[in-house]
Amino acid sequence: MESKKPLILVSNDDGVMAKGISELVKFLRPLGEIVVMAPDSPRSGSGSALTVTHPVHYQLVKKEVGLTVYKCTGTPTDCIKLALGAVLDRKPDLVVGGINHGDNSAINVHYSGTMGVVIEGCLKGIPSIGFSLCNHQPDADFEPAGLYIRKIAAMILEKGLPPLTCLNVNFPDTPHLKGVKVCEQAKGCWENEWVTCPRLDDHHYFWLTGSFTDHELENENNDHWALENGYVAITPTTVDMTAYGFIDELNDYCKQIEF
Amino acid sequence: MESKKPLILVSNDDGVMAKGISELVKFLRPLGEIVVMAPDSPRSGSGSALTVTHPVHYQLVKKEVGLTVYKCTGTPTDCIKLALGAVLDRKPDLVVGGINHGDNSAINVHYSGTMGVVIEGCLKGIPSIGFSLCNHQPDADFEPAGLYIRKIAAMILEKGLPPLTCLNVNFPDTPHLKGVKVCEQAKGCWENEWVTCPRLDDHHYFWLTGSFTDHELENENNDHWALENGYVAITPTTVDMTAYGFIDELNDYCKQIEF
Repeated sequence: MESKKPLILVSNDDGVMAKGISELVKFLRPLGEIVVMAPDSPRSGSGSALTVTHPVHYQLVKKEVGLTVYKCTGTPTDCIKLALGAVLDRKPDLVVGGINHGDNSAINVHYSGTMGVVIEGCLKGIPSIGFSLCNHQPDADFEPAGLYIRKIAAMILEKGLPPLTCLNVNFPDTPHLKGVKVCEQAKGCWENEWVTCPRLDDHHYFWLTGSFTDHELENENNDHWALENGYVAITPTTVDMTAYGFIDELNDYCKQIEF
Repeated sequence: MESKKPLILVSNDDGVMAKGISELVKFLRPLGEIVVMAPDSPRSGSGSALTVTHPVHYQLVKKEVGLTVYKCTGTPTDCIKLALGAVLDRKPDLVVGGINHGDNSAINVHYSGTMGVVIEGCLKGIPSIGFSLCNHQPDADFEPAGLYIRKIAAMILEKGLPPLTCLNVNFPDTPHLKGVKVCEQAKGCWENEWVTCPRLDDHHYFWLTGSFTDHELENENNDHWALENGYVAITPTTVDMTAYGFIDELNDYCKQIEF
């Protein structure tokens, strides 16, 4: 890796075999040297989970000019930590997660392993972007997203991102994208999340499912609205979760906590 | 559950058998009716991970006046979703995670299953608090934290919390607590995270470990500083991860993305 080309570290949560990550690599290759370190099987819904009860293992899958692919037994976050801490010999210029098979807008940022990748890159001080498509199918069509992905990644390679800030980019599932929209994370919640699947006479088995309800349907600034209306939603995301606006009031509350 | 007493939903990531959760229940019992739904084994480092590849199962462990305990095969976040969506017949007045065996201050909020519990409660619109002690030992002494935990929980039951806001409360491992300090999430990062543990001739096995470096050692407002100096650190935490301060600049950036 003596190359002066930008180094781009790629991972996902659908696993190294998913179409979304190979499409992502295809779109990013003109921009630099690509290293993939991705889970060896699907890890949807991993959030920023870590592997702490057993060792993590990685293995070379493929190496060619400009592209090295590893698979890893760990979570998406483990993949980034491992690549940065034990595999790469220089710091990447960009960390990219995706392309996720499924919507990671709104509060899904908390559950998404793809955004786990991005949050970890960001915590390590590297400009980081997650790309997701609102289509769960294994053979989803990522092609319409391609030009946007290349342009957004090139833009962030050139300009960088502020400290503690990353991007959560979601694409509606349409060939006719209306352009990009900078958004806020939609406020809402998942409902009807459990479906029973009894085993013998035990009715305490449940599948996780559900539907998302947007609590601000009229808010044209939110990412859920943008996706529903055909725009590429770019949600700038901070890893500093401090509720700064509540500090003064909480200080008042806490006056009653004295012994 | 016809009781008018507040309903308090409790979970953790160390598992239903951990000392920390039984101590938490002991401290909270005077405040209301307690329902525990906790993982059936340790799930440290779960973040907000979900179980999506197989069904989740729960089981009654114990029922007595004022206390019902369930164990669950899922993640900490699953536990809260399952209790709210499939088990409880009224909405809790408070969700509490902990007491975690180990520090969840600073950027650990992203990896912590205990904070996964709290983030989920908060996303569901319920005042939610996480309690953690800076001691990983199974037999850690939680007693000094007890009076604070009861008082903080009573305070939030009385006053509530703003929308999208929860509390991340961490205790230093000392019998001589200096009082509470409302904090910001410390900025820093984990370093030296991997230790090799070769198997036969394969050197690609690694244990996750590491040490936290605070990037703002002089910042007396941060939670890491508070803990190092003997204070109970209360970090108000938002589940809205939008980087609002970067929206205008990102809009400028994005002018170059047109086709």
